[in-house]
Amino acid sequence: MENHYAKRISNLKASEIREILKITERPEVISFAGGLPAPESFPVDEIKEISRIVLEEEGTAALQYTTTEGFDPLRNWIADRMNTRWGTQFSKDNILLTNGSQQALDLSGKVFLDEGDVVLCESPTYLAAISALRAYSCRFVEVPTDDNGMIPTALERILETTDRVKMIYVIPDFQNPTGRTWSLERREKLVRLAEEHNVIVIEDNPYGELRFEGEMLPSLQVFDQTGSILSLGTFSKIFCPGFRIGWILGDPDVIKKYVLVKQGADLQCNTLAQRVIAKYLDMYNIDDHIAKIRDVYKKRRDLTVKLMDDLFPDNVTYTRPEGGLFAWVELPAAINARDVLEKALEKNIAFVPGGSFFPNGGKENTFRINFSNMPEERIKEGLVTLASVLREFCLKTH
Amino acid sequence: MENHYAKRISNLKASEIREILKITERPEVISFAGGLPAPESFPVDEIKEISRIVLEEEGTAALQYTTTEGFDPLRNWIADRMNTRWGTQFSKDNILLTNGSQQALDLSGKVFLDEGDVVLCESPTYLAAISALRAYSCRFVEVPTDDNGMIPTALERILETTDRVKMIYVIPDFQNPTGRTWSLERREKLVRLAEEHNVIVIEDNPYGELRFEGEMLPSLQVFDQTGSILSLGTFSKIFCPGFRIGWILGDPDVIKKYVLVKQGADLQCNTLAQRVIAKYLDMYNIDDHIAKIRDVYKKRRDLTVKLMDDLFPDNVTYTRPEGGLFAWVELPAAINARDVLEKALEKNIAFVPGGSFFPNGGKENTFRINFSNMPEERIKEGLVTLASVLREFCLKTH
Repeated sequence: MENHYAKRISNLKASEIREILKITERPEVISFAGGLPAPESFPVDEIKEISRIVLEEEGTAALQYTTTEGFDPLRNWIADRMNTRWGTQFSKDNILLTNGSQQALDLSGKVFLDEGDVVLCESPTYLAAISALRAYSCRFVEVPTDDNGMIPTALERILETTDRVKMIYVIPDFQNPTGRTWSLERREKLVRLAEEHNVIVIEDNPYGELRFEGEMLPSLQVFDQTGSILSLGTFSKIFCPGFRIGWILGDPDVIKKYVLVKQGADLQCNTLAQRVIAKYLDMYNIDDHIAKIRDVYKKRRDLTVKLMDDLFPDNVTYTRPEGGLFAWVELPAAINARDVLEKALEKNIAFVPGGSFFPNGGKENTFRINFSNMPEERIKEGLVTLASVLREFCLKTH
Repeated sequence: MENHYAKRISNLKASEIREILKITERPEVISFAGGLPAPESFPVDEIKEISRIVLEEEGTAALQYTTTEGFDPLRNWIADRMNTRWGTQFSKDNILLTNGSQQALDLSGKVFLDEGDVVLCESPTYLAAISALRAYSCRFVEVPTDDNGMIPTALERILETTDRVKMIYVIPDFQNPTGRTWSLERREKLVRLAEEHNVIVIEDNPYGELRFEGEMLPSLQVFDQTGSILSLGTFSKIFCPGFRIGWILGDPDVIKKYVLVKQGADLQCNTLAQRVIAKYLDMYNIDDHIAKIRDVYKKRRDLTVKLMDDLFPDNVTYTRPEGGLFAWVELPAAINARDVLEKALEKNIAFVPGGSFFPNGGKENTFRINFSNMPEERIKEGLVTLASVLREFCLKTH
């Protein structure tokens, strides 16, 4: 069949993360690899109770086909939350429910990207966004990025000198993979530059609710004047990922195109999951629930950073994320994180090497650490072992 | 934003069905339009009980991320069922779970179709398959089709004289929209011709389990010698559509490409839905359940055909499906079914005009009748009214 595949297939490769995740299914493996939420944070009992209620009260509707756009009470809730928080004026017509924000990335490619179009992204950026968009045969140009986001002068120069820039893809809060957060100034500047150059912005925000300290910074929508910002959100990190319910928010005319494309892609999201989440939001205060998740992750982040401070060799640097699920580690330039992973796996420790977060290839001396998934004892045990592996590599390079 | 959209967007239009479905949400409308299963056939109580058990026994796993391929017990069940029925030798590695078979259509486009590739299809064919595949900028060539499937001499001639044929898309059982079923001979001949011309076959089979009479005819997989058949199935019509769980079955190397593409598209299907279906299949006999659905639909089909026999004008023809959800009506050539729909909607009757089931435009004097969704009283009331509308049109043409 080799000669039958579409050309785009040759651009795709299996996600390194999902391959590593298969290894980490062995219970003895301590994994910093996935982006998995803490399973003990899932509201299992509430979901059990609510599933019963929804199936009793609206059973056939909850199992039947529904609209592509999604369940209206859920779309209204998403709009209201954004409006209450940031003073925006959105309604359900601004929102399409998607199978997690991953599908919103795929649909964004389908709605906007022709072969050869250019996507600007942070450097590094989210691995699965690269896979989703690359399926539309785009090219990526990485914008130099520091601890406060893309560097505006660099972004401006790239916008001025690059043909066919269609889209800028960013994760302003607790970025995957670095854990970095964009400053307020950079957010506004990004929107102004995108508007000047008539470019779409995809704001991916799966982790924004999980801030451990400091003040929440506004969505890019707050600065939008031309309807060129599409904002992605998800219930995966604040409720549960297995339901696959996320959303895309944007200009209603643009959302109509997304609806059209989702119709062809899979008709609609799981009906019962939409109604269970809506009922949960009605019966419980999700902010109390999010506060609990935040407390757990903050402790894990604190422990992770402290252990890195105490145990990692001096020539290893890393981020200190103010929220989210990830930290980012940079090794001396001569060390390849894939070699480190090989040694670490021998000691049953897993993480994701950083190279594949650079769409055009890049810093192989980096890796990503997830701190949300495991209890503190495991984090401690794992980082102690990992630090010993790192010391071996770092000593060799002296 | 108009100038930002990808070229493919100009090929897409809203599904006429889903637009008509919005009208049919008014309770007074008697709708033959959608392809909705009978809601009273959903195993609501069983799903309620099983959701409780799954959440109690495997709660966190049922809400967490899982593999892209899908839940192994469910993949095994699908392979076993095919093997038991047709003597094939499939395993879970032949199967990827998808969000209904609609997603399997979308992924098929993504895996195989480059811009300008040709898809051969029945004439008419499933509307949403046209939308799914058209998003990959393919061209459709309709193969002349009669009551037994595509006409082999016509298919052969088209295969010999058409450049860039990549794929043949067919619905051999109780086709959507016509309700027709391919004969055994035509099935085998299709596979032989596809193999000779080195073309992929997509066998879409959402209704095959719902046969009211006669003998079940084999999957095209039975005739496959080169791994060029991909078979789509779904739980939507035998369990419930709101769960969005379908599958694609094919050669393991091809399935690996589908997995890669699904990873980028939405990571995975809803975890809980996969486990609930698997547990249902474990605890209950789904064949008993399917037998019940079949009985209900058979009565509705019988009534529909009898009323069409009794009430429709003599110059109106229609199919007598042996299973599935749909019948197909052909009016005298001068009558446009969209005009009929307009009059019918005034009397609160809905159906889908046939024109949009022809990818290159076609017989506007046709329409599709769904008989699965409504109880018999409503079918009767609706067809009596529809017949009176048809008589008005048909008399005018004399």
